[in-house]
Amino acid sequence: MDESSLRRSLADKQAAIDAQGNAVRALKAAKASKSDVDSAIDSLNSLKLEKASIERNLLALVGGAGDGVPVSRETFRQTVGNALERRLFYIPSFKIYRGVAGLYDYGPPGCAVKSNVLAFWRQHFVLEENMLEVDCPCVTPEVVLKASGHVDKFTDLMVKDMKTGTCYRADHLLKDFCNEKLQKDLTLTSEKAAELKHVLATLDDLSADQLGAKIKEYGIVAPETKNGLSDPYPFNLMFQTSIGPSGLLPGYMRPETAQGIFVNFKDLYYYNGNKLPFAAAQIGQAFRNEISPRQGLLRVREFTLAEIEHFVDPEDKSHPKFNEVANLEFLMFPREQQMSGQYAQKLRLGDAVSKGTVNNETLGYFIGRVYLFLTSLGIDADRLRFRQHLANEMAHYAADCWDAEIECSYGWIECVGIADRSAYDLKAHSEKSKVDLVAHEKFSEPREVEKLVITPHKKELGMTFKGNQKAVVESLEAMNEEEALKMKAALEAKGEDEFYVCVLAKSVTIKDNMVKIAKEKIVEHQRVFTPSVIEPSFGIGRIIYCLFEHSFYTRPSKAGDEQLNVFRFPPVVAPIKCTVFPLIQKPEYESVARLISKSLTAAGVSHKIDMTGTTIGKRYARTDELGVPFAITVDSQVDVTIRERDSKDQVRVNIKEAASVIKEVVDGQRTWADVWSTFPQHASASADEE
Amino acid sequence: MDESSLRRSLADKQAAIDAQGNAVRALKAAKASKSDVDSAIDSLNSLKLEKASIERNLLALVGGAGDGVPVSRETFRQTVGNALERRLFYIPSFKIYRGVAGLYDYGPPGCAVKSNVLAFWRQHFVLEENMLEVDCPCVTPEVVLKASGHVDKFTDLMVKDMKTGTCYRADHLLKDFCNEKLQKDLTLTSEKAAELKHVLATLDDLSADQLGAKIKEYGIVAPETKNGLSDPYPFNLMFQTSIGPSGLLPGYMRPETAQGIFVNFKDLYYYNGNKLPFAAAQIGQAFRNEISPRQGLLRVREFTLAEIEHFVDPEDKSHPKFNEVANLEFLMFPREQQMSGQYAQKLRLGDAVSKGTVNNETLGYFIGRVYLFLTSLGIDADRLRFRQHLANEMAHYAADCWDAEIECSYGWIECVGIADRSAYDLKAHSEKSKVDLVAHEKFSEPREVEKLVITPHKKELGMTFKGNQKAVVESLEAMNEEEALKMKAALEAKGEDEFYVCVLAKSVTIKDNMVKIAKEKIVEHQRVFTPSVIEPSFGIGRIIYCLFEHSFYTRPSKAGDEQLNVFRFPPVVAPIKCTVFPLIQKPEYESVARLISKSLTAAGVSHKIDMTGTTIGKRYARTDELGVPFAITVDSQVDVTIRERDSKDQVRVNIKEAASVIKEVVDGQRTWADVWSTFPQHASASADEE
Repeated sequence: MDESSLRRSLADKQAAIDAQGNAVRALKAAKASKSDVDSAIDSLNSLKLEKASIERNLLALVGGAGDGVPVSRETFRQTVGNALERRLFYIPSFKIYRGVAGLYDYGPPGCAVKSNVLAFWRQHFVLEENMLEVDCPCVTPEVVLKASGHVDKFTDLMVKDMKTGTCYRADHLLKDFCNEKLQKDLTLTSEKAAELKHVLATLDDLSADQLGAKIKEYGIVAPETKNGLSDPYPFNLMFQTSIGPSGLLPGYMRPETAQGIFVNFKDLYYYNGNKLPFAAAQIGQAFRNEISPRQGLLRVREFTLAEIEHFVDPEDKSHPKFNEVANLEFLMFPREQQMSGQYAQKLRLGDAVSKGTVNNETLGYFIGRVYLFLTSLGIDADRLRFRQHLANEMAHYAADCWDAEIECSYGWIECVGIADRSAYDLKAHSEKSKVDLVAHEKFSEPREVEKLVITPHKKELGMTFKGNQKAVVESLEAMNEEEALKMKAALEAKGEDEFYVCVLAKSVTIKDNMVKIAKEKIVEHQRVFTPSVIEPSFGIGRIIYCLFEHSFYTRPSKAGDEQLNVFRFPPVVAPIKCTVFPLIQKPEYESVARLISKSLTAAGVSHKIDMTGTTIGKRYARTDELGVPFAITVDSQVDVTIRERDSKDQVRVNIKEAASVIKEVVDGQRTWADVWSTFPQHASASADEE
Repeated sequence: MDESSLRRSLADKQAAIDAQGNAVRALKAAKASKSDVDSAIDSLNSLKLEKASIERNLLALVGGAGDGVPVSRETFRQTVGNALERRLFYIPSFKIYRGVAGLYDYGPPGCAVKSNVLAFWRQHFVLEENMLEVDCPCVTPEVVLKASGHVDKFTDLMVKDMKTGTCYRADHLLKDFCNEKLQKDLTLTSEKAAELKHVLATLDDLSADQLGAKIKEYGIVAPETKNGLSDPYPFNLMFQTSIGPSGLLPGYMRPETAQGIFVNFKDLYYYNGNKLPFAAAQIGQAFRNEISPRQGLLRVREFTLAEIEHFVDPEDKSHPKFNEVANLEFLMFPREQQMSGQYAQKLRLGDAVSKGTVNNETLGYFIGRVYLFLTSLGIDADRLRFRQHLANEMAHYAADCWDAEIECSYGWIECVGIADRSAYDLKAHSEKSKVDLVAHEKFSEPREVEKLVITPHKKELGMTFKGNQKAVVESLEAMNEEEALKMKAALEAKGEDEFYVCVLAKSVTIKDNMVKIAKEKIVEHQRVFTPSVIEPSFGIGRIIYCLFEHSFYTRPSKAGDEQLNVFRFPPVVAPIKCTVFPLIQKPEYESVARLISKSLTAAGVSHKIDMTGTTIGKRYARTDELGVPFAITVDSQVDVTIRERDSKDQVRVNIKEAASVIKEVVDGQRTWADVWSTFPQHASASADEE
């Protein structure tokens, strides 16, 4: 039974209980026989039991720990979170001062994972595609973010507790209210449930007034104090500061890295030999002063972005390497499927582009590259989908936009946005800075084109309009082709035309001797245009968090008395590639361990020696919980054991070869399967999990 | 002749000229004979010539382009700067909006150099020493920077133009005034010159009042407007912001990355198995809201720091790997040499530590590692010195401090600070946060120690002091050993003692039945102490700028008609490792070039194909100016030419081997000398520099 039927039968059952209750009371009032009353009460009780059973089913379906997340997901999240925090993958920032919401540190293994992810990003995108990487400051003067629209529009709607002044995100309170009702109020009619679900689905579209009206209608109050709330009003999410000592130059901590690339377009285009297409890239910190951060590592106030701005001729968005990704098949969730309530489905990328589901080849190429990037890191392909923005989500100027969404315990999370932003950003900065941010296509041969030329006759206009001459001239010159052709026709037909001059706020009469409008042949040597920009933008912290969840699993200890945590990071991501430990504390073994460690350092393989006398099983468990893919155990002065984390398979390798075998597997020059079949297999499980 | 003698003979000469001028006037007044007058005038003229010659010498010695930098350095700086800006090593940030002083972008080659330097830093320090790398946010709440002292003390003294309000650094104005006088005012007496030099030498020690007095005394005014200046007052250099929407949680953009490590000490110590020593490291952005940034890339408002905090037992600062650096010899500039006006001299690091010039082995070890790091990057060892802080430069808590200074066109620039900061930082945060940031040394056997134990007798104290009992008890317990021993003696001698209770702001009489003070034997199982921290702190941007200058040289083009720019970056630093170009535009050559490019990408070697039809000489020049160490020229389908940038030597290599040869030389597995002697040498210089 689905939620709606359950709610309906719950309401039916409640009605039956009410009726039977009345019947019991009536029997008692009529002093009916004890057996009649008892039988009526039995019926009432069995109705109550049936109701309880429906309630349990409904709770199992919708009940949860807030935010629409089932209880089991919450438990999983806590288990992963505990492992991550205990092993210092991350640390709440400034913990000894009780921290600051929305700020986290990466501890040693987290920091290593992050720098591995960034190094792989550089290799996969910047190096592979010959992108121009730049590095711009976080501190940004207001004028830049005024041009980009962030000063005016980078806001969330906020409400304040009327008495304490505590701030909340208005949509969060409404969302919490709806979820809470849906999950815990079993008396909800299925009509009311549908209404609340509609509110949840359209939350992002609500204006300040609409949000305020809903908050009033539902009687939502401040969560802690139960005080009334203010009307919603916009709060700018940028951290503001002041540049220099005068206090006269306002600045912000950048909300994204992209603007640094746009303002450098002219230089980068020149650097690229004045040729399109080319891509610029930037990795760096970005800032977002969240009103009240939630969702742990997913919604933070400072984060690392990796952004690409691929500049392309708007008239040719083909991509020479598209065929390299055309045969990839993965979950895509086009607009139509979302609107008709279907699920994401596997599509061949080549088909999605050729059928026009994805707007163009270049956008498609990046979708494919992002898919390869994420799955190489260890993101589960079955929990990764590319969702197209709905019309109401997309900026008016965008040609098309797809989000790589990864499913984790918080639901489907946007981790990479891949948007065709057309010419919007370059045009905005051109306008504000008065510097042309354009590209040129030189024609191999000059082209003759026919253009409509408007030539105002200044002398005649001056005699008629005197001081207004300049305004009239400029307005005539500013006519678009349609207006000009209309005037041309009117002048030819009637010898004059009424013409509205904006700056004068009145109409004037233009005679046919005052302006010449004619198609003329002009020789052009080049086409000048504003490039389109296709922007893949990566939330590195979000990708890493999802990766943590996708990599995590538990397995029983050998004794079976506890569950051991494992992160199945691929070598490219693993914070440490290898641990080295002597089986027992013995000087000969320790010196072999040190020797191998030295070779690993020389080979640039990050590793750790563990010389403690802890049991080997415990040391394996420790290293598994850090996601270290390989362990070298020293139990002789000739051969050592190399163990793979997930299979727990072990091989025997000569001490001289150990470091280079690890290096090869870690660098991907060799697979573990190959190592496993090359070297003598080590059967003894005694070393493991004792 | 030195400056002082020149100034003296200049003054003597001027006096002689004045005297001779008087003599001439006297002869004329006395209507002396024409020959006498002429002869006196001849003497006057020859005196003037002699004076002019002394002036020229003096100018050559002290004259310059401000800041004490000789003119030739200024020219050199401009030449390097032009090359750097034209090739987009860096770009003034937000250039199309006319930029913001003190903010720079790294363009593509600069960004690549930076990420190479950081990758090498990670390899050389973090990986090699098994450091714990962390990654903390830039946004920092006030309480953290209050504890560290930055809120109160991270200031520069500022003066304002009394009419326009323009702000200046007070010390900069005074410095400019002194330099200008010394360089351009040839009438300066040698006493006055000595005074100005003394001011320059003690500039950093001057208080606000002293600076203000000097500015008044010298009549210094605002440089542009010549208006009067305000008194100097402190301006805090942190960018301030507000965390969250309430406006109640002030925050700053961190001025250094170190604090993020200190506040995490407890977790990191635990992560390291509660063992000392260990080091934590962090790479990240730091911010400094300079009053009026100068010195281009050397003094900026946002920069990348790489910092190490090495935590060590204050009673044992030996380092197990010190012998690996003990034999290094390089320029050191100890305190004594600076005070006695000597120059830096080459010292063997081992001797500097054993003689106590460098405070301890760990500090010495890091000095050695920093030397290796910088010279591996390409910093000229002859223009690198380690200068010890003078007593007045060093914080009161520091045990010793050395700066790695690199000489460039701006003079000797501090690029790395290596300080033994003792327990200061951890203690400051312990105090403010009330969280113990300490280490434990477990004794192998419990130790019996004698300790002074103060036991207030609460019953007796309560009867006498009633409501004040608690205050008296706490004050008694808080006595230090000296105070307690004095009281013990008094109680034994007189049976009572006067005791001042701070919180009560009065003295009370303590009787001998109210407190027991006795030496007692206590068994201790461990020693609890605050670790010392040794902090090498790297200004990455400064290192990179100095590297640019040290790597730059020019050589004549083949035609001899122009000077070509070259950056002699070692492969580890070079932004691109290799360029690939077909000798002429020919499809067969282009497909070979593409094939080699593919192998290079697979090998992870960053490179660039240049398919333009430009002459090979021009293409070499272009690539030399980016500091690309190797070029592969395709002129057949069998062999290609590999050219080394600085020697311009060329060898012939089979196309299948080309990528792997480049990879080996770039990774340092093979030297160019080895390649040069292995493969057939390509004698034809015709390919180069045509």
